[in-house]
Amino acid sequence: MQEKELEQLLGQVASGEMDLAKAKEMLLHLPYEELQFAKIDHHREMRQGVCEVIYGAGKTAKQISQILQHLLAVPGGNLLATRVEKEKAAYVQSQVPQAQYDAVSRLLYVRRKQEEKGLVLVLCAGTADLPVAEEAALTADLLGAKVQRVYDVGVAGIHRLLEQYPLLRQANVLIVVAGMEGALASVVGGLVEKPVIAVPTSVGYGASFDGLAALLAMLNSCSAGITVVNIDNGFGAGFAAANINRFMKEDESC
Amino acid sequence: MQEKELEQLLGQVASGEMDLAKAKEMLLHLPYEELQFAKIDHHREMRQGVCEVIYGAGKTAKQISQILQHLLAVPGGNLLATRVEKEKAAYVQSQVPQAQYDAVSRLLYVRRKQEEKGLVLVLCAGTADLPVAEEAALTADLLGAKVQRVYDVGVAGIHRLLEQYPLLRQANVLIVVAGMEGALASVVGGLVEKPVIAVPTSVGYGASFDGLAALLAMLNSCSAGITVVNIDNGFGAGFAAANINRFMKEDESC
Amino acid sequence: MQEKELEQLLGQVASGEMDLAKAKEMLLHLPYEELQFAKIDHHREMRQGVCEVIYGAGKTAKQISQILQHLLAVPGGNLLATRVEKEKAAYVQSQVPQAQYDAVSRLLYVRRKQEEKGLVLVLCAGTADLPVAEEAALTADLLGAKVQRVYDVGVAGIHRLLEQYPLLRQANVLIVVAGMEGALASVVGGLVEKPVIAVPTSVGYGASFDGLAALLAMLNSCSAGITVVNIDNGFGAGFAAANINRFMKEDESC
Amino acid sequence: MQEKELEQLLGQVASGEMDLAKAKEMLLHLPYEELQFAKIDHHREMRQGVCEVIYGAGKTAKQISQILQHLLAVPGGNLLATRVEKEKAAYVQSQVPQAQYDAVSRLLYVRRKQEEKGLVLVLCAGTADLPVAEEAALTADLLGAKVQRVYDVGVAGIHRLLEQYPLLRQANVLIVVAGMEGALASVVGGLVEKPVIAVPTSVGYGASFDGLAALLAMLNSCSAGITVVNIDNGFGAGFAAANINRFMKEDESC
Amino acid sequence: MQEKELEQLLGQVASGEMDLAKAKEMLLHLPYEELQFAKIDHHREMRQGVCEVIYGAGKTAKQISQILQHLLAVPGGNLLATRVEKEKAAYVQSQVPQAQYDAVSRLLYVRRKQEEKGLVLVLCAGTADLPVAEEAALTADLLGAKVQRVYDVGVAGIHRLLEQYPLLRQANVLIVVAGMEGALASVVGGLVEKPVIAVPTSVGYGASFDGLAALLAMLNSCSAGITVVNIDNGFGAGFAAANINRFMKEDESC
Amino acid sequence: MQEKELEQLLGQVASGEMDLAKAKEMLLHLPYEELQFAKIDHHREMRQGVCEVIYGAGKTAKQISQILQHLLAVPGGNLLATRVEKEKAAYVQSQVPQAQYDAVSRLLYVRRKQEEKGLVLVLCAGTADLPVAEEAALTADLLGAKVQRVYDVGVAGIHRLLEQYPLLRQANVLIVVAGMEGALASVVGGLVEKPVIAVPTSVGYGASFDGLAALLAMLNSCSAGITVVNIDNGFGAGFAAANINRFMKEDESC
Amino acid sequence: MQEKELEQLLGQVASGEMDLAKAKEMLLHLPYEELQFAKIDHHREMRQGVCEVIYGAGKTAKQISQILQHLLAVPGGNLLATRVEKEKAAYVQSQVPQAQYDAVSRLLYVRRKQEEKGLVLVLCAGTADLPVAEEAALTADLLGAKVQRVYDVGVAGIHRLLEQYPLLRQANVLIVVAGMEGALASVVGGLVEKPVIAVPTSVGYGASFDGLAALLAMLNSCSAGITVVNIDNGFGAGFAAANINRFMKEDESC
Amino acid sequence: MQEKELEQLLGQVASGEMDLAKAKEMLLHLPYEELQFAKIDHHREMRQGVCEVIYGAGKTAKQISQILQHLLAVPGGNLLATRVEKEKAAYVQSQVPQAQYDAVSRLLYVRRKQEEKGLVLVLCAGTADLPVAEEAALTADLLGAKVQRVYDVGVAGIHRLLEQYPLLRQANVLIVVAGMEGALASVVGGLVEKPVIAVPTSVGYGASFDGLAALLAMLNSCSAGITVVNIDNGFGAGFAAANINRFMKEDESC
Repeated sequence: MQEKELEQLLGQVASGEMDLAKAKEMLLHLPYEELQFAKIDHHREMRQGVCEVIYGAGKTAKQISQILQHLLAVPGGNLLATRVEKEKAAYVQSQVPQAQYDAVSRLLYVRRKQEEKGLVLVLCAGTADLPVAEEAALTADLLGAKVQRVYDVGVAGIHRLLEQYPLLRQANVLIVVAGMEGALASVVGGLVEKPVIAVPTSVGYGASFDGLAALLAMLNSCSAGITVVNIDNGFGAGFAAANINRFMKEDESC
Repeated sequence: MQEKELEQLLGQVASGEMDLAKAKEMLLHLPYEELQFAKIDHHREMRQGVCEVIYGAGKTAKQISQILQHLLAVPGGNLLATRVEKEKAAYVQSQVPQAQYDAVSRLLYVRRKQEEKGLVLVLCAGTADLPVAEEAALTADLLGAKVQRVYDVGVAGIHRLLEQYPLLRQANVLIVVAGMEGALASVVGGLVEKPVIAVPTSVGYGASFDGLAALLAMLNSCSAGITVVNIDNGFGAGFAAANINRFMKEDESC
Repeated sequence: MQEKELEQLLGQVASGEMDLAKAKEMLLHLPYEELQFAKIDHHREMRQGVCEVIYGAGKTAKQISQILQHLLAVPGGNLLATRVEKEKAAYVQSQVPQAQYDAVSRLLYVRRKQEEKGLVLVLCAGTADLPVAEEAALTADLLGAKVQRVYDVGVAGIHRLLEQYPLLRQANVLIVVAGMEGALASVVGGLVEKPVIAVPTSVGYGASFDGLAALLAMLNSCSAGITVVNIDNGFGAGFAAANINRFMKEDESC
Repeated sequence: MQEKELEQLLGQVASGEMDLAKAKEMLLHLPYEELQFAKIDHHREMRQGVCEVIYGAGKTAKQISQILQHLLAVPGGNLLATRVEKEKAAYVQSQVPQAQYDAVSRLLYVRRKQEEKGLVLVLCAGTADLPVAEEAALTADLLGAKVQRVYDVGVAGIHRLLEQYPLLRQANVLIVVAGMEGALASVVGGLVEKPVIAVPTSVGYGASFDGLAALLAMLNSCSAGITVVNIDNGFGAGFAAANINRFMKEDESC
Repeated sequence: MQEKELEQLLGQVASGEMDLAKAKEMLLHLPYEELQFAKIDHHREMRQGVCEVIYGAGKTAKQISQILQHLLAVPGGNLLATRVEKEKAAYVQSQVPQAQYDAVSRLLYVRRKQEEKGLVLVLCAGTADLPVAEEAALTADLLGAKVQRVYDVGVAGIHRLLEQYPLLRQANVLIVVAGMEGALASVVGGLVEKPVIAVPTSVGYGASFDGLAALLAMLNSCSAGITVVNIDNGFGAGFAAANINRFMKEDESC
Repeated sequence: MQEKELEQLLGQVASGEMDLAKAKEMLLHLPYEELQFAKIDHHREMRQGVCEVIYGAGKTAKQISQILQHLLAVPGGNLLATRVEKEKAAYVQSQVPQAQYDAVSRLLYVRRKQEEKGLVLVLCAGTADLPVAEEAALTADLLGAKVQRVYDVGVAGIHRLLEQYPLLRQANVLIVVAGMEGALASVVGGLVEKPVIAVPTSVGYGASFDGLAALLAMLNSCSAGITVVNIDNGFGAGFAAANINRFMKEDESC
Repeated sequence: MQEKELEQLLGQVASGEMDLAKAKEMLLHLPYEELQFAKIDHHREMRQGVCEVIYGAGKTAKQISQILQHLLAVPGGNLLATRVEKEKAAYVQSQVPQAQYDAVSRLLYVRRKQEEKGLVLVLCAGTADLPVAEEAALTADLLGAKVQRVYDVGVAGIHRLLEQYPLLRQANVLIVVAGMEGALASVVGGLVEKPVIAVPTSVGYGASFDGLAALLAMLNSCSAGITVVNIDNGFGAGFAAANINRFMKEDESC
Repeated sequence: MQEKELEQLLGQVASGEMDLAKAKEMLLHLPYEELQFAKIDHHREMRQGVCEVIYGAGKTAKQISQILQHLLAVPGGNLLATRVEKEKAAYVQSQVPQAQYDAVSRLLYVRRKQEEKGLVLVLCAGTADLPVAEEAALTADLLGAKVQRVYDVGVAGIHRLLEQYPLLRQANVLIVVAGMEGALASVVGGLVEKPVIAVPTSVGYGASFDGLAALLAMLNSCSAGITVVNIDNGFGAGFAAANINRFMKEDESC
């Protein structure tokens, strides 16, 4: 349509129907709605069609269902809806039979591609951090990364973490999920040279202030180069990790 | 320059030098740098050239001086630099003799137009709020509003405020500047029907937490429709007030 | 009544029934209850009778019902009760059949006048911000403004917002509703010259701290002249916007 | 008992059964458990037996019931249990028929004395503040004060408060209960010379942060000499006010 | 003057010079500035002329000097300026020789009356709390109270406080000044039945957060009826205490 | 197993099957997984097998059940699961009949040893602090300490605490549990010379901010040497106290 | 003196000069000032006279000097003044030649006894934590403990800490001093079974919020039984550690 | 040395001087200090010797000087000291002539290698953010990345940013530096698919609370996959970006 209008205008210029000054004027004042000409990857979805993401919180089961059906009509990558409660998921699955639901991470997804690139390692400190860790792991997986999990390696028993040292060094990107004092991120950050993404969780009580303690700790990590996402934002960490992993050199993972 | 390129392209279309498909392609993929074609009022400066604003904090005296000289080369409205310390101001004035400096509000300005439209009323609770109140008042003034000041009308002596009732009702927009518990905004908001902009100040000690107490109070005002700016942000309030005042019907001020 | 008493007193002075000293004494000690002599628009309701507002939170369905019936007995403008839960609304509607209820914004209202003055534009970043955005939009509407909605234009897909550029420039007042990082307000503020009122919402999780992140972001906006209301205070923003819009010059909306 | 031991010791000294050195030694090392000798008014209950207070929160209905029965066995003043939920109150009343329950303030009490001394005035800003205001009022009443209520006098409609000016000046002590921005305390504090006790309430939303806004506002009041109690602590304010009122000169209330 | 105008008006009514309708009109629309007719004690100064208070912070030495000279021209009570720095005080004293300066409390004052009514007891926990304690003590003294000091009775050495028990019970009002954990207020509150006013100080470091720890502790005191003022607000506590003390029955102090 | 591998390697070195350089290389690069060679007491459990601790929060009844059964298969000390809700406890008890449940502290445990070493004294301020106090007391008990409780000794009635003075001086370690203003810790800290561990609780309302007030107060205690654990962390305090008590000299308690 | 009065009273009882009832009465009403009878270790100083502590902050050089001279007049243990600035220390040393000053920890002390009991280990994460670590170390030393320092063992290089493992296991008490994210405390807590005292420091910037990040992290440590002191409170940690160390069994350290 | 000891032990095993059991015992109990056998990249320095980093804050000029000289003695990569004040830098430069100092970013460095790999783009919102932006840019540069700067592209003038769209899409990693409301990160995050690292700065006043507003905004970004570092932590962002950039596929930068 808009391409057509442009075609028309240029045709008129070519044919002399429209004089140059007017054409220039029209193009100069080209309002913002013409911006779709530019190739913005809107919603920051990955161009290779690896995955489309729906932010599930605040959407009805019906809305999620319809969006998924809409996306499934077109061939493409994996589809992912985050923060979907159990009941909503059941409804969506009744409408979209291909959809799978992971109750721990509350992710609802349709897997249409299986990629296993590089290595994203997801570590977590305690069992209570599992929902966030799984959100990170499954997100990275659906976004095309090979994912491995190293759970229950809290710093209070440092040897459990150190036993995993060789594995740590193999990862392209490491996601560290921890609540309470969030110290795991700093220790891991000191052991590897690859990018480390820290996810504070709201696990804890009292002066954890719903994850604030872990968040502040991770932001103040003495291990250089650790970056941090929002409290309980497993999705964000998985997304960022898969993103970095995707652009990494194959042979870099030793 | 870029206009020229566009002219050239259209010329080539008109002359047949460039075929339509290629022209369309080029225009379709028109990258964002072409956006200056669109008429964005950048820096949100007022189009009528009433005033150009320089955020003075973090700029050297020399930088401010050069920007002012640059702006003065072109005829236009008033020029205003905010948060300029005394020493910087002295230097700038030695370079730009037209520049005036108001030590209370730390505003440095060149007045090239005198407008006195409508009425912006600036109220403040105590004498310590004066620098912020003056920043608001002088900003609104330079932006073309008629400004009146009603100072030292804190709610602890409510009669002082009530004595100004007729004046309050005449204003197009009211700016209420108060530190400590910031109650003045609510009381004023209850007395008038015109827009009220509240400016919390960092005046106070102890549990005022550098203006947090006043800020929260103003955000929670029981008087409907009061809007709030950042702590000590006299400039923002003056700007917003002048902006509203500028678009108001003349005969509305009773 | 009280006018009568005053008349009587003056009559007695004129007739010599009351001596001057006593009359002076009585008038000097004129207690505050005589203040209703002065013309205060109490409750800051708009004098033109556009709208009466009832703060619904903390009131019983019966109380709201009675107040509405009381107000309906007198001819006048629209009536509006805020923050009314579904169940309460149902009861009120059983008693006051004219009352309409909007479940999204939780506004209960009786529309007795239809005005469509100027243009208030309500923008919101995501679908979860809708209840607050609708509270703002419907409030402004009931207070006499023509209202348009531009929803789901979060800054993560900036082109969606830019496409609305011409519409943005037409509005008299813009209300920007956003949770999470609240960045939309700053971007909109940079695109228009009309007053922008920002409403932070409690949408988000973790370090959004129930809207604190968005609130602070909006208060610190680098776009000059944005003013802010309380978290989730759609009503306050709608009220302020309608108020500014009402006093604006007709021909100002381009 | 312990008095008896002391008696015995002194008897032994008098009779020569115990030598002076040993008696001195025993008295010198008199351990702390002997402290009940001293007349401490424990629980800070009023000595005149006006009222005994039970902090109801965290106590079972049965516990409250037993304590009341125990206290009722001895003649004395009024009995008061705070923060008692409806269900608990019903049980207690089934066991202690004299007990009355006020559902608004959640106070459960047995009135055995009626005193109406001086005047404590309880003001509140909005209807949502009522539970706290009533807790203050009924507490002061049960502690022997004459109490008057002036409700719904928020500062957004300042004339409603000013109409009560003569009454304000009559009170011995004033309790100001307000949520949201808590401005009422400052205005009242500026109108009277008697002690003003401010009670912030958790009424509000968003940036009221459960009463923090009102608390900070009241602590920063520009009206000298206002004192503040904890958020929603109507009991504390009523207690303090009754306490001050009790010691005031009769003729002081003008 | 204004009394004169009223007199005149009434005279004109009496003499028939002014007709009733016009007189009624004038009195009915009596604007707010006529409010001084009513007897508001503005600045909440005490009517008996005990003391006039100047808030010194943010005022120049010259301003304070002029206000004092102005007040001294009229016979009256004591004069008090708070938060006056040493250098300012020296200047004021050079201009107002009667002025005395207390460097600890930073109070500058002129004593014109000596009253020693009742008993206000000022307690403080540590030597670092002295400036605030002295501000409270001297303020209460200048406002007409007999004041006694009990310093350095922190709860870490509870016996030091308990030794003062008889004195504690004699006071009409007790001011408790404490930084760090502010526990002293609760202990004193449990020992006496008279009003206790708690003043948190900014004494401490680290997690005292400039007095926040003490402030919160005092607001949450388990001793019923303690009221609190702002951090470091010795003046406010002294003012409130003197105010309560002034209205107390003479014979109440045992 | 790993011991075997090492044995093998050394055997090969001894037998000359492996040359020295290769053996050195293998041992030098001994990866971290060999760390279990070192004798780390993982989980910081006490080596004497006094007690094994399971953090119950976030674990299912089944998981707790299985862990307990696993641990019971091996002879050893007491077993303890913290923060176990009533329903979970019932299930576990149906599977592990030896398990006892304390509903107040929400501790589920199997007592296999009875030790009564030294003396840990647990004090609490009010009845609402009981769950935390009991968690501390029972934890210390299961970890081998003799425990005594001194409850309801809030500082508002200081004599109740002072009566326990001799007992206070007998304890090896004192745990002070208090919500609201947490002043009890400072007073106790001033009365004894033994280690004092303070536990803030979330008991309170309003400005207690879920235990923040007590936490800050305890951290700022003016009694030297008090150490603090997280809000409501009775387990942590009991653990630390039992730990200190365990290493104390027998004859030190007097 | 007071002993004398008691002697006298008992003498009068014995001689019959005072009758029993009156003596009983006098003793019963024995006011609190008699409390010095009881043997309270005031200021919580150690009874063995190991050390007397002066809180130096807020005291003048002269005051510190006089207190030290006063204490030196009596034979006894070490003397310690905390938080003494360099200039004050120089003055004190000019008056009290025996006094030594440690500029890093700002401790001023007179060593009169040398004890080296047990082992207190002080660890710190970075060189910026040194002032606090040294305050802890020197305090513990002066209070009679043998002290060893393990500095610069931040968790970003975990091997540096692990190299010290044997030493860690030898200590009676461990003090862990760390700013930024404070993770060191959790790691150390997981490696040893002895008491660990964590000291957050204000080292860091941005979201360390002057030590809040480290404080929260330490309070939320996943290593059981860690206790925490105020931010930068090296003295408190040293005091507590020496106190625990002092009562520990000799043979326990290994 | 330690390698030698191991060699010796193995030699003794081989020669039969040491029996197998003893050798096994020694190796089994191999204490942690042997951990240096393992190849940990301590200090998380990059193995390729690109850069050694010294945290300059809290170190004396002399210390920095000596460390640099020590590092320069060995051939290797670039050397970098952060947060070095001007005066310290001058001293270091007098000792280490090769050292260069950048006064804006306060980085002191020795460049021994010049690498220009990939592309790290550093964007900042305003001129006041420059010191942090430059710290990020120069750090990434010294760590081997090609760096480009896009400054002064705050969202208030969105077109300035959009003009850079093609450049944005070319970068491997983008660092977004912004104070005030930090909205730039979200807008950039929505325009590119490569990793975005956000750095909040303390630029702002009032409710920016020293960078808290920007920090919270960035953590709550609606653009998926943005990660965040501490306030003003340009170094951390530069480090992380260079790290990601280093492992990226060459051909990925389009």
